[in-house]
Amino acid sequence: MTSDDRPVLVFDVNETLSDLRPLHGAFEELGVPGEVAATWFASVLREGFALAVHGEAQPFAVLGQEVARMLFAAHPPTGDVEDAVSHVLEAVQALPVHADVPDGVRAMAEAGFRLTALTNGSAATAEGLLERGGVRQHFEHVRSVEEAPCWKPASEAYTWASGAWGVPLEQMLMIAVHPWDLHGAARAGMRTAWIDRHGAPWPRYARTPDLRVSGVRELAARLSAGGAGLTV
Amino acid sequence: MTSDDRPVLVFDVNETLSDLRPLHGAFEELGVPGEVAATWFASVLREGFALAVHGEAQPFAVLGQEVARMLFAAHPPTGDVEDAVSHVLEAVQALPVHADVPDGVRAMAEAGFRLTALTNGSAATAEGLLERGGVRQHFEHVRSVEEAPCWKPASEAYTWASGAWGVPLEQMLMIAVHPWDLHGAARAGMRTAWIDRHGAPWPRYARTPDLRVSGVRELAARLSAGGAGLTV
Repeated sequence: MTSDDRPVLVFDVNETLSDLRPLHGAFEELGVPGEVAATWFASVLREGFALAVHGEAQPFAVLGQEVARMLFAAHPPTGDVEDAVSHVLEAVQALPVHADVPDGVRAMAEAGFRLTALTNGSAATAEGLLERGGVRQHFEHVRSVEEAPCWKPASEAYTWASGAWGVPLEQMLMIAVHPWDLHGAARAGMRTAWIDRHGAPWPRYARTPDLRVSGVRELAARLSAGGAGLTV
Repeated sequence: MTSDDRPVLVFDVNETLSDLRPLHGAFEELGVPGEVAATWFASVLREGFALAVHGEAQPFAVLGQEVARMLFAAHPPTGDVEDAVSHVLEAVQALPVHADVPDGVRAMAEAGFRLTALTNGSAATAEGLLERGGVRQHFEHVRSVEEAPCWKPASEAYTWASGAWGVPLEQMLMIAVHPWDLHGAARAGMRTAWIDRHGAPWPRYARTPDLRVSGVRELAARLSAGGAGLTV
């Protein structure tokens, strides 16, 4: 196998590599219940997907700001609303990687896998996250759907990555915590690996992933053992 | 104007006519933070829209169950998980209408507007809600996208309603609390009215609604005064 034929791992970024738990604290600092952070993130994706239904797209930050403004109408922050909106978006840009990410990423890079990232967020936010986690140098590509025609899970997002990477879809493994991402990637022709850190059940309406692991460290071990039919 | 030319009001149901606040209590009864109810609802829509991106659809109840199971992995309920999933879905079927709904609906019916409902949920849940609110008799149609090719906000959902009602899209006014619903309806060719009970800002990425009101009572007053260009 030449180096060009090596399988390419495509990591989702938000919540897959980044740990969103500090966002709860960011909302609490605004006098808003911490759980609203989870509603905010689910709502940003909801809005992005609603636009994707029409073939429309907006930057993650635009949706993030507008969703925060809408949620703050029902959950007023203690200070200025626009300051609060900025506080939330800044907190997203300061998130850490999950504890299982650094060792797992290094193990996969050392095993010879090609690592890349495809985010619905901004490329700059993803770059910053990987820098803070000390693993940026292991990723060949860190790209955003902001360059693509559409957000994930639209097929065009995965197909765009295949073109941008110069790698056929069937040689790519999409890795995410979100079933909707893996369902979209599988429909587009990629193999898929689900990171299920909470031991959640897989939803019956999404295509079964090729691999299911509890974190990035286990993913490294499974891939090195030939999981998902990908060998270096 | 003959009776067939009268404008037709199309109400969204979940959160537009139903008051979701009791769902918070339903989660708290399970030992789960009440705010998870809002995450659950946003996530159910997120999953439904992710499928709509592919032209796929599942019943609201299926997504509601699977999303509850996923959330309960991170927020374990005190009792059995399947009982907790049922508890959430039963709570949805027992929601009340918002306080502004009964008077507003009666006023619009008396003013000669034709009232209908189009829900992403099940028709039976919508029927039950309107019965409990004492306004079912004022609605000509109470239908679900489960009969249509796709969920709202896909254009096909609104176009299906136009066909099912036998009314041209431009004679229909979509009424919702959700900007994504009105954006989709406007793209499909309907007029739109936004119910903004919290005084939230309109998101800049969605088409501006023709009317903006604080509740169904105000909607009745504005429509009776010729708002949105609709007169009986």
